[in-house]
Amino acid sequence: MDTLLQNINTPQDLKNLDIQSLCRLSAEIRQYIIETLASHPGHLASSLGTVELTLALHRVFNTPDDKLVWDVGHQAYAHKIITGRRLQFPTIRTYGGLSGFPRMDESPYDAFGTGHSSTSISAALGMAMASKLQGNESRQHIAVIGDGSMTGGEAFEALNNAGVSKANILVVLNDNGISIDKAVGGLSRNLTRITSSRRYNALKERVWNMLGGGTDKGKGRRRHRRVGVYQYLTFMAKTALLGEPNLFEALGFRYFGPIDGHDMDELVSTLEKLRDLKGPKVLHIVTKKGKGLRSAEQNPVVYHAPGPFDATTGLRQTSGHQESQPPKYQDVFGHTIIELAERNPRIVGITPAMLTGCSLNMMKDVMPDRTFDVGIAEQHAVTFSAGLAAQGLLPFCNIYSSFMQRAFDQIIHDVALQHLPVVMCLDRAGLVGDDGATHHGVFDIAYLRFIPGLTICAPMDDHELRNLMFTSQLPDQGPFVIRYPRGQAVNVDWHNEMEAVPIGKGRRLVDGTDVAILSLGHPGNDALVAARQLSEYGISAAVYDMRFVKPLDTDLLDSVAHHGFRRIITVEDGVRQGGFGSAVLEYFAQIGCSTPVTILGIPDHFITHGSLSQLHKDCGIDAESIIAAALAN
Amino acid sequence: MDTLLQNINTPQDLKNLDIQSLCRLSAEIRQYIIETLASHPGHLASSLGTVELTLALHRVFNTPDDKLVWDVGHQAYAHKIITGRRLQFPTIRTYGGLSGFPRMDESPYDAFGTGHSSTSISAALGMAMASKLQGNESRQHIAVIGDGSMTGGEAFEALNNAGVSKANILVVLNDNGISIDKAVGGLSRNLTRITSSRRYNALKERVWNMLGGGTDKGKGRRRHRRVGVYQYLTFMAKTALLGEPNLFEALGFRYFGPIDGHDMDELVSTLEKLRDLKGPKVLHIVTKKGKGLRSAEQNPVVYHAPGPFDATTGLRQTSGHQESQPPKYQDVFGHTIIELAERNPRIVGITPAMLTGCSLNMMKDVMPDRTFDVGIAEQHAVTFSAGLAAQGLLPFCNIYSSFMQRAFDQIIHDVALQHLPVVMCLDRAGLVGDDGATHHGVFDIAYLRFIPGLTICAPMDDHELRNLMFTSQLPDQGPFVIRYPRGQAVNVDWHNEMEAVPIGKGRRLVDGTDVAILSLGHPGNDALVAARQLSEYGISAAVYDMRFVKPLDTDLLDSVAHHGFRRIITVEDGVRQGGFGSAVLEYFAQIGCSTPVTILGIPDHFITHGSLSQLHKDCGIDAESIIAAALAN
Repeated sequence: MDTLLQNINTPQDLKNLDIQSLCRLSAEIRQYIIETLASHPGHLASSLGTVELTLALHRVFNTPDDKLVWDVGHQAYAHKIITGRRLQFPTIRTYGGLSGFPRMDESPYDAFGTGHSSTSISAALGMAMASKLQGNESRQHIAVIGDGSMTGGEAFEALNNAGVSKANILVVLNDNGISIDKAVGGLSRNLTRITSSRRYNALKERVWNMLGGGTDKGKGRRRHRRVGVYQYLTFMAKTALLGEPNLFEALGFRYFGPIDGHDMDELVSTLEKLRDLKGPKVLHIVTKKGKGLRSAEQNPVVYHAPGPFDATTGLRQTSGHQESQPPKYQDVFGHTIIELAERNPRIVGITPAMLTGCSLNMMKDVMPDRTFDVGIAEQHAVTFSAGLAAQGLLPFCNIYSSFMQRAFDQIIHDVALQHLPVVMCLDRAGLVGDDGATHHGVFDIAYLRFIPGLTICAPMDDHELRNLMFTSQLPDQGPFVIRYPRGQAVNVDWHNEMEAVPIGKGRRLVDGTDVAILSLGHPGNDALVAARQLSEYGISAAVYDMRFVKPLDTDLLDSVAHHGFRRIITVEDGVRQGGFGSAVLEYFAQIGCSTPVTILGIPDHFITHGSLSQLHKDCGIDAESIIAAALAN
Repeated sequence: MDTLLQNINTPQDLKNLDIQSLCRLSAEIRQYIIETLASHPGHLASSLGTVELTLALHRVFNTPDDKLVWDVGHQAYAHKIITGRRLQFPTIRTYGGLSGFPRMDESPYDAFGTGHSSTSISAALGMAMASKLQGNESRQHIAVIGDGSMTGGEAFEALNNAGVSKANILVVLNDNGISIDKAVGGLSRNLTRITSSRRYNALKERVWNMLGGGTDKGKGRRRHRRVGVYQYLTFMAKTALLGEPNLFEALGFRYFGPIDGHDMDELVSTLEKLRDLKGPKVLHIVTKKGKGLRSAEQNPVVYHAPGPFDATTGLRQTSGHQESQPPKYQDVFGHTIIELAERNPRIVGITPAMLTGCSLNMMKDVMPDRTFDVGIAEQHAVTFSAGLAAQGLLPFCNIYSSFMQRAFDQIIHDVALQHLPVVMCLDRAGLVGDDGATHHGVFDIAYLRFIPGLTICAPMDDHELRNLMFTSQLPDQGPFVIRYPRGQAVNVDWHNEMEAVPIGKGRRLVDGTDVAILSLGHPGNDALVAARQLSEYGISAAVYDMRFVKPLDTDLLDSVAHHGFRRIITVEDGVRQGGFGSAVLEYFAQIGCSTPVTILGIPDHFITHGSLSQLHKDCGIDAESIIAAALAN
């Protein structure tokens, strides 16, 4: 069948389409996304919500000269499809294929790479100030940002700066009430109130028409008034009638909307008017996350990244954990924190907008008062936890490893310096696979290890995760970091009786005489595989699960240093520089150990997206790589 | 003379003072602060602005059971004086003396330690939620935060979360229009407009009185109305008459003010009313930074931390740089960026509210369009710089080392991953002295070293700083970090002809045969002193200024490794773990160098405040320590 989509190779091809054709094209793109993602998993619901917006933006603006930045970027699939990447789209998030996020090195239409939230306004403002300095006063700089991302502090910092800047910046606030989990907080409530104020909208439209606007959809009713009238009426509309203070106006933006983000006609005509308007402005659009696939509309949290599903019915192929398989680490965390919290009334759970992602939703269900989703706000999440701890509670603050980078200063300044008992659980530590460079949790060991007073550990399996969680909540433990990977744990029978782990103590898993393998966390499982295979080569490899990178088990290291090993190999799923291996070197330098040491870890470049096995191999931290290191002279 | 102050040993002693006595006490405290700081330098202007507020808060609230958190904390001197630390106050910021900031381990009245900005609302909210869970519904939790700190993203994250929390939290917005430098941005303008709306204030007061309030100062006019009337009138006041949207109300706070923060009567009566009000509320007070010392009022930026001054006239003892002395590193930066920007039109300067502190005010004076103060907003500053760079400019983003911790994720995600040419200048790297644990810039080498694609260097003196700045702006350098310390550089004649430094190349400063000292940055000067003294002991010490920690000079390290030194000593003013010394160990492990290595650097605990010489000695990184390491077997 002839489709419109097959002829869309650049945004230029949109310029001559009428509204009706754009609507038809939206439907085709939506279908293409659904059919592709059904078998090539990706971020579904967000991208379904922004199809009309994508077409309208590229139709109205002169991309790539006008700059378009997608906050987070997982909603940019339609954008990728119409900017020359239609045929490659099925490769998305696969090794060597398209990234799941915008990347400057992938297309000139990706004006700025994203992945973490709340950066788009800062980036667009930077570009806008550059254009201004370069004498280009007409270029527009557009940040598309969800209401969830808007809660991240950096977005506010940028709004505050942009509001007084006179820069040509257009913030498109994509309001769908969802930030992976349901959006929370005062801003979300503010937006809901603005949106639900029908009288406001009605008046706003009348004012708009008076100005010569065109949302009247062909009725042609136009009256011209002086600007004074407009100002007076919008003033009245915004204040006396609406009565709802508006965050954006408070910060110096001109505010437009809310409008229906699936109404192509309204989108195009509104954007056309905004295109020529100088200065900072916000367009508030309301969209439905998951639009066009009923199950995704009904359950946008699950369909944020649903894995494989049936393109027609939406039915997901994997429906949870199978009893014959080990559970995910995150679910072991989710079950275990409830178990602990039932026994220890001081325990509370905190997450910045990752309730489902880290399985803290389980606790929220049974202990809603003791579970806090603070919005996309990692900095606040950590200091808030410190505040809870200062008053005698014992917060488990769960943040993905790469997102915890946002709260680095708060860990130092609010938690560690005050030695407060906050248990920081870093989910998604190590390589995460398909999400790629922005999301790999490979820096955490290196960025936490030097912080005084932290205890930092990594469980090798589910039993150890439970034991370490149990240990972390015992009296007087101080700040405690537990990092564990994305994906499946090790034991089908994961529900062990928890026991305390001695702080700073590793354990010998396998005895050996030729080489020693020191592992931290989940890679210990590969170390075991390697040791078994090495014995087939006639090499006797000892394996030590160090468990803690801080404090280091110096007794164990002393004994390893004096054992007469030919070589000591360290393995970790974090960066080689400054990580666990580096900690071992530091101690060996201190005691004058001269056994050769090989450090296996993530090399010094950003790691792409792809399957975990592929990436582990590329990075030289899989069992084969350990074997190769042991066989090397 | 008998003073009121001499009898104030705890806030309990305030409870029976009448308003007049409180005013007298304010004057005495102000005088005590001025007289003390005249000879014991500290943060003057901020603390002078909050004297009345401090007394009013402790008089009205039941501290320390009610929780009082001072954002940043340099305005808390009056708080320290009346909470049992009056006699120790002259020891402030000296070794072994009081900290310049609140510290939980210093007093139970310091409910939460601060130093970096914008954490107070998060902390107070955490405490408030803890109180709620613990069944204490009446305890109040107060965050005192300046309008400058309010621009930091974390404050917004916390407001967004608190606005829907129903927690007993009172945010006192201390609005003085200053954040070390003049406050900037949309929020600042919003506050000014609110404050300057006289009609609003007048109506507000009438409404307040109707409610039974007492700001009518003894006139006793009280009328009781139904709540409905109150709501209607405040609604009208806030919207129809004021017409200025209010950020705090948008986020779900009840907003009160603005009131005069130096009017004790109004402060006490307002706080008394707020004390029993549940839920999240903001009190907006307007104060004068530097209040009570004319020169400080007139120039609050200079008198933020003026050094020694005359208590009567306010005249500062040190009035700038003396020609016979080497300049400060920050001033070398300030002069040099102008010199470079005059030649290279792509260069722009960015700072988050540290214009004067990093001497970028010099550039602001001569190139206002190319100099950006983005507010207290480190995250935004870095991504904004990345946006500028993405459009072809060459931003020099200057942030103190310890504040750069706030932008850690942005360096990784927005700058390094996209290999954008942002020059990140980290002023105040290394130990900073009097400001102590929260402000030491000792982590930066360790937290930056593992980030792929960065060039990271540290100049040993002013000439090197200029050469490295020159090098950083040459074509195709990518992201570039230059870290340099607080305080005085080395050469009186600092204005050398700049020349390019080969990337990743160190230099030999002194030839030697027994031990090698590898230094990074300013400590190289101590290495030179040590080498000279070692020669008197008959030890021949070579000194290498490595300049770059990334990329490492592996050629130099190869030659050092094969030189036959008895011992290699590394010295840096950063943490020992994961830092420069660790990088050397990693490389030596790789090439199998077995020469013993001693790493000198900051040990694994938080470092207190005190003089630089004292702290360098304590940390074992002064010349004596290098000598001792060389003499050790």
